[in-house]
Amino acid sequence: MRVTVLVRPKAGILDPQGEAVGGSLRTLGFTVGGARVGRLVDLEVDASTPAQARADVERMCEQLLANPLIESFEIEVEGQDE
Amino acid sequence: MRVTVLVRPKAGILDPQGEAVGGSLRTLGFTVGGARVGRLVDLEVDASTPAQARADVERMCEQLLANPLIESFEIEVEGQDE
Repeated sequence: MRVTVLVRPKAGILDPQGEAVGGSLRTLGFTVGGARVGRLVDLEVDASTPAQARADVERMCEQLLANPLIESFEIEVEGQDE
Repeated sequence: MRVTVLVRPKAGILDPQGEAVGGSLRTLGFTVGGARVGRLVDLEVDASTPAQARADVERMCEQLLANPLIESFEIEVEGQDE
């Protein structure tokens, strides 16, 4: 089952990469407000149901994929709505 | 208007970060197939319509946010379906 994890810096956490992206876009002439940069992980998970896949990936996020102190994560399971 | 850009390594492009994540997850006892790591950019774009926002962000991707040689990008405009 294909699962996508979106990891974002939490609100209030400094995001130098996002600030650099925002600054560069403005230099290029674009009008943008804040820019924040996070990462995404696409996983092929071996699970029998979408709910099971989501539960597994939640544990993966807690143990490896996201730093809960400074990052929030969102899990999208293919074929399952939030 | 809030826009999220998802940038992924194209199929066939080596993704050492994804391989490291996959390996670490297996070491932790999870059963996962391939893992691929990309990045996401959340932007606040000044545009009058969702279509305009999408067109602007497409140009940002081409000029700065993605490397078209090795990465594909996907644009999600808040309140607009693909």
